[in-house]
Amino acid sequence: MNHQLNKRKIINDPIYGFVTLPDDFIYELINHPYFQRLRHIKQLGLTNLVYPGALHTRFHHAIGAMYLMTEAISVLQAKQIQITEEETQATTIAILLHDIGHGPFSHALEHTIVKGINHEDISELLMQQLNKQYKGKLSLAIKIFNNQYKKKFLHQLVSSQLDMDRLDYLRRDSFFTGVSEGVISSDRIIKMLNVKNDELVIEEKGIYSIEKFIIARRLMYWQVYLHKTVVSAENLLVNILVRAKQLAAKGVDLFATPALSVFLKNNFSKKDFITRPDLLDNFASLDDYDIFTSVKVWAKHKDKILSMLCSNLVNRKLFRIELKREKIELSSKKELIKMCMKQYKFTKKEASFFVVSGEVENSAYRTDNLKINILMNSGKVIDIAEAGDQLNVEVLSKTVKKYFICYPKDLIIKK
Amino acid sequence: MNHQLNKRKIINDPIYGFVTLPDDFIYELINHPYFQRLRHIKQLGLTNLVYPGALHTRFHHAIGAMYLMTEAISVLQAKQIQITEEETQATTIAILLHDIGHGPFSHALEHTIVKGINHEDISELLMQQLNKQYKGKLSLAIKIFNNQYKKKFLHQLVSSQLDMDRLDYLRRDSFFTGVSEGVISSDRIIKMLNVKNDELVIEEKGIYSIEKFIIARRLMYWQVYLHKTVVSAENLLVNILVRAKQLAAKGVDLFATPALSVFLKNNFSKKDFITRPDLLDNFASLDDYDIFTSVKVWAKHKDKILSMLCSNLVNRKLFRIELKREKIELSSKKELIKMCMKQYKFTKKEASFFVVSGEVENSAYRTDNLKINILMNSGKVIDIAEAGDQLNVEVLSKTVKKYFICYPKDLIIKK
Amino acid sequence: MNHQLNKRKIINDPIYGFVTLPDDFIYELINHPYFQRLRHIKQLGLTNLVYPGALHTRFHHAIGAMYLMTEAISVLQAKQIQITEEETQATTIAILLHDIGHGPFSHALEHTIVKGINHEDISELLMQQLNKQYKGKLSLAIKIFNNQYKKKFLHQLVSSQLDMDRLDYLRRDSFFTGVSEGVISSDRIIKMLNVKNDELVIEEKGIYSIEKFIIARRLMYWQVYLHKTVVSAENLLVNILVRAKQLAAKGVDLFATPALSVFLKNNFSKKDFITRPDLLDNFASLDDYDIFTSVKVWAKHKDKILSMLCSNLVNRKLFRIELKREKIELSSKKELIKMCMKQYKFTKKEASFFVVSGEVENSAYRTDNLKINILMNSGKVIDIAEAGDQLNVEVLSKTVKKYFICYPKDLIIKK
Amino acid sequence: MNHQLNKRKIINDPIYGFVTLPDDFIYELINHPYFQRLRHIKQLGLTNLVYPGALHTRFHHAIGAMYLMTEAISVLQAKQIQITEEETQATTIAILLHDIGHGPFSHALEHTIVKGINHEDISELLMQQLNKQYKGKLSLAIKIFNNQYKKKFLHQLVSSQLDMDRLDYLRRDSFFTGVSEGVISSDRIIKMLNVKNDELVIEEKGIYSIEKFIIARRLMYWQVYLHKTVVSAENLLVNILVRAKQLAAKGVDLFATPALSVFLKNNFSKKDFITRPDLLDNFASLDDYDIFTSVKVWAKHKDKILSMLCSNLVNRKLFRIELKREKIELSSKKELIKMCMKQYKFTKKEASFFVVSGEVENSAYRTDNLKINILMNSGKVIDIAEAGDQLNVEVLSKTVKKYFICYPKDLIIKK
Repeated sequence: MNHQLNKRKIINDPIYGFVTLPDDFIYELINHPYFQRLRHIKQLGLTNLVYPGALHTRFHHAIGAMYLMTEAISVLQAKQIQITEEETQATTIAILLHDIGHGPFSHALEHTIVKGINHEDISELLMQQLNKQYKGKLSLAIKIFNNQYKKKFLHQLVSSQLDMDRLDYLRRDSFFTGVSEGVISSDRIIKMLNVKNDELVIEEKGIYSIEKFIIARRLMYWQVYLHKTVVSAENLLVNILVRAKQLAAKGVDLFATPALSVFLKNNFSKKDFITRPDLLDNFASLDDYDIFTSVKVWAKHKDKILSMLCSNLVNRKLFRIELKREKIELSSKKELIKMCMKQYKFTKKEASFFVVSGEVENSAYRTDNLKINILMNSGKVIDIAEAGDQLNVEVLSKTVKKYFICYPKDLIIKK
Repeated sequence: MNHQLNKRKIINDPIYGFVTLPDDFIYELINHPYFQRLRHIKQLGLTNLVYPGALHTRFHHAIGAMYLMTEAISVLQAKQIQITEEETQATTIAILLHDIGHGPFSHALEHTIVKGINHEDISELLMQQLNKQYKGKLSLAIKIFNNQYKKKFLHQLVSSQLDMDRLDYLRRDSFFTGVSEGVISSDRIIKMLNVKNDELVIEEKGIYSIEKFIIARRLMYWQVYLHKTVVSAENLLVNILVRAKQLAAKGVDLFATPALSVFLKNNFSKKDFITRPDLLDNFASLDDYDIFTSVKVWAKHKDKILSMLCSNLVNRKLFRIELKREKIELSSKKELIKMCMKQYKFTKKEASFFVVSGEVENSAYRTDNLKINILMNSGKVIDIAEAGDQLNVEVLSKTVKKYFICYPKDLIIKK
Repeated sequence: MNHQLNKRKIINDPIYGFVTLPDDFIYELINHPYFQRLRHIKQLGLTNLVYPGALHTRFHHAIGAMYLMTEAISVLQAKQIQITEEETQATTIAILLHDIGHGPFSHALEHTIVKGINHEDISELLMQQLNKQYKGKLSLAIKIFNNQYKKKFLHQLVSSQLDMDRLDYLRRDSFFTGVSEGVISSDRIIKMLNVKNDELVIEEKGIYSIEKFIIARRLMYWQVYLHKTVVSAENLLVNILVRAKQLAAKGVDLFATPALSVFLKNNFSKKDFITRPDLLDNFASLDDYDIFTSVKVWAKHKDKILSMLCSNLVNRKLFRIELKREKIELSSKKELIKMCMKQYKFTKKEASFFVVSGEVENSAYRTDNLKINILMNSGKVIDIAEAGDQLNVEVLSKTVKKYFICYPKDLIIKK
Repeated sequence: MNHQLNKRKIINDPIYGFVTLPDDFIYELINHPYFQRLRHIKQLGLTNLVYPGALHTRFHHAIGAMYLMTEAISVLQAKQIQITEEETQATTIAILLHDIGHGPFSHALEHTIVKGINHEDISELLMQQLNKQYKGKLSLAIKIFNNQYKKKFLHQLVSSQLDMDRLDYLRRDSFFTGVSEGVISSDRIIKMLNVKNDELVIEEKGIYSIEKFIIARRLMYWQVYLHKTVVSAENLLVNILVRAKQLAAKGVDLFATPALSVFLKNNFSKKDFITRPDLLDNFASLDDYDIFTSVKVWAKHKDKILSMLCSNLVNRKLFRIELKREKIELSSKKELIKMCMKQYKFTKKEASFFVVSGEVENSAYRTDNLKINILMNSGKVIDIAEAGDQLNVEVLSKTVKKYFICYPKDLIIKK
């Protein structure tokens, strides 16, 4: 007993207190370089430019989601839901690794220098790689992750409207940003979990916690995930990476870490990643540090476009951004580009790096196949949209789309 | 009124909620590149290897200390202590900039590649530089910072046993590490502040909050600041930087950002910093990113010592560390070095990069000239050491020194 | 300075920390027996039967609302809104005394043994009484309380959709019940207060906090204020008091404190209260203790109706309650009464004490004249219902009415 | 499964969130009138006169301690400590009922009108009574409670330096008073529990939490449990009850509830309680309401001593109290009595009701047989007093005795 005791590891989490690692194999996975790299990838990318506390990493989030999973499983077991030890470990591994494929500033990266493959694909490749290294010990976890296992509710714990991923990230993002409107009672929701007909359900008593969860998510979208200054900063980074890749393609000399260099100078397809394990490893050594360090050095690059964009990001002189309910008219975008050309002596191509338009949308609660099921005291299972008679869930679930346009703060607008 | 209103900026802090920036000049200082760089310097260096939430930056701490200062000043003014608007701004600036000279991983840096000058000196040089740029607008702030202003208590708000620096960092470090034992009631302490004979004092009612503050500080020392794994990681980084500088001196090719490169290849004295503003600017562009990115690249360097040390840090295979009350005997250190030589086929010089010894000490409450004064209900002022009859402050204030020795985890110890 | 210092009183509040009493006159008012009696009147009546922590008193709530008022006024003053010292004190007194007229279990009392007058009227009579005792020192406070003062926004701080009363009670009720869904960020809302055209407004930045406030209020209605078990308990108490008054009218001997006895044996009109100060004083000596002590003794009364009702309340054998969206049909009520008659050998009159029907409704945000005004960045003032484009405030503001019927838990229902 | 589910009851606790009642028998015990009466007995008696939030009841505390017990047992079971289902239930019942014998304002009561028996004895009598009613189902619980069961550590969970009673009351008292200095991390301590050689121990990692626990307890003693105003109020109540009993003995007519009346008019021994179950039932119907209601009525009694004392308590005009490190000299007490005689025209006997002296002492950590054992990583078990090298536990554990004297606030002191 004592021997085992000394090996159980504990991680201090400001949100949950002591998090005990459930077993030795999971401890080994956490120590694997693939997982340790998540220490250097911020969960919310550039959001710390608006909320300075938002520096928490995908590492911390994955540990948190794992913790909630162990809580959820033990609540279900106490309600006589059969979950074997093997299933417990596999489901825990599935949630631990659900984001393993994320790169630094994923959104920006996937739209620019790593275009051929998305993080979901990389997650799967990395899991398979680990499965190979650990001789099949992740097979069940991968099955559950891909929803190919018979007990469907285990997958729902990993990925659904109420999965442990969301429960952790909403609470964690709210904690570190300080946006208290987004705080959710993850422990209360978890205590209300149950399984009926192999589906994850919430007991009727938990209905208010779910309502609050849906509302909190909506508020987090507008206050954090789609905060206009964050959108502006991300678009600045996108253009930086686009420009850098352009220059690299032309053979212009660019400071970069070796890992970043590979992606600046080449275009890879998903197939490349599958066939070349070195590429996967190279991707797995990229993190926020590679990107930001390069941006800092590029701020003094002789290419005026690149250096201007970079120094704007480093010194937090972000684009001004306008968010509107209506589509941005093409003419007004053209007008802004013209002004840039004039004021900064840019060509049209150059100027277009400084005027960005696009759209963002929330998607708080989808009414399609991703329902939240409520187990009524009567034993009936109904969707929250019908059960919550006090709140019109439809209203909350409506997708809101907004359009934005960005341009330099010091651009003199003539109207 | 409205116009002014739109310009008042608000920062969301998970600890204090909304922090309102007091005025436009302070807003300008915060936007200065010297200050923005603090966004990329973690307050607690490598501590996040033990407490994954501890990623908060010196930027965030400085904003927090500034917030506490505005609170403290308004509490004192409500108690009829005269503080003019000019003094208010100057004291606020002094606390905002108190750590401006910190580099990345200060402790490690100052013992290795930037040896000639410490962060206090650089803080002062940077403040003077800013004072020049802003045409003397920081003169009073600098005077207060250096304790050359007639109202001594203003300096004590910036630097003393109960300054706003400590009140913020203890609470902030406790918040982000999740070490709840260190939580202090900064608002309660601030509400109890007063001034008597130009000295900052605590009203008698606040005595328990102060006792708890002293205790919390002690616990933070042992659980966070001197946590043995953190000490081990820091010593690993020290040796990495020492080795890198050695190699650079020999002309070995080393990946590095331009800013870091300068310090790897040269040795500068304090005088150099004073006479060469470019050097100060170069220092001011160094941050955590420069260091860690280089370490990551060096992990594949052909120098075996450097690559081994670096890959240990990147993959969190830290030194094993033993913490003892007695001095480490020289013979046992020599023994460990010998084992390293044998196991890794190192020369003695090489092996000594992998065996580190040293000492750490807390210094919770110094009984010398840095007292905490209590204003008794009777009007008398006495030191907390005498006032706290329930607690033996002497015991708490005793300096505890511990000795440590580090060596590789996979070193096979034969006894 | 020191002298004054010793007299400033501090109250420890688990919600706000240290609450400093603003001045000596307010301290005197708080020490007045009229105000001290609020220590013995629970804010939420019988709610502690469902939420055992909900024992907080009207005393504590009044102190809390006073604290928020001092915060709000100092925020407004910092924004250059003119509020004189005299107005500050008067507004603070107005909020402190806003609930002074509440009796024990107000709702139950006003529907039974103190029918002729409501707590609002008594509040006003008590304030006038205090104004007499303190020689007109409350005149301005009363003017503001009654919205007869020129600066309308001062009244709005005391009574409006966003007054300090609501901000405190929502947060306090949420804190003590443990219903975390109701937590509101009172400090964030207060920091966003401003005045425009003599109207209290919220600055645009605070819009999400207001949305969350409206939602929290709705959830508190259904989870706390209209919790069905609480409704059931209150109706039980109503019937106890009705029965006791009936018996008293018949001259049956009943244990009661002298203060309660007066109201059991007589019916008074508002006019009686105005003309007889002794009556007001008698009312002001009634509190929760008089009611509950009597109920406990009555549980052994020889009147079977009274003793059964009382022992059900004391031993928490509350009515079963059904809450429905449709009106309760008269026939089903009659049916239940018949069952009671049969099972307990009651007459129809007696049985009807055990079958209660009625309705409850929330009223979260009224769209009529009680708007929440948002001060947009543009300087325009609009209603939150229009400003909150992410949330359909109309949906939230819709009044929901529910119908209930109660009957004994051990009644055997035959269908 | 579903059926069982509907019966599991949940209680909302502001401290722990949802508390699930473990089984039906415990639910029945909680519904028993003996237990429900604890709803009307405040945990901290008159402390709410100083900390207005401190209205929480022994009912709430017992539920909280029960919750911690279920947590502790499941932590121990996860560490392979054998605890059967039957033992689990029994230990849980033991903690639930550990304070069942407390009367209203226990301390005051046991020194005045219920002198012959203390609450520990009554607890045991009530448990035996319940055991009879439930046909022996509490036998094991009683055995564990009395430390007569073979597994000693189960008793230690109920009663020892680190029992669930203390863990709950320190945290709960701290929560409701708002004295944040007393907050303890009960969940962290519980996670560190283990059993070694049938003794409850704390794992080494938890040593700082224990240190903080000891410190918090000390601060709670001086800030709450022995707060001088609380001591003053309690002594006022003691004298009220002494006077009332004196008058009752003389046959003076006194308002009182029937239950209180019995104790005012008679003196009972422990033997009486054992032989007369009606007496036990009578005691079990006494609560805070009986006492305070009577005090309120007595405030208008024609006996000048009684009415003065009572009206001082009701209107919170408490005795002035002086707390000293030295014994109060008899001469100064006599002097004060003389002043009372003169100022209020009292006889010496009467005056002595208004001058009270006595002593209070903390007893934070006793070094005798009630140790806190630490399980070192090495496997050795040592006492915290030796293990905590950073803190001198001896200093903290020293008993501090203080002496007090009380007299009326309006007494004119001539020196």
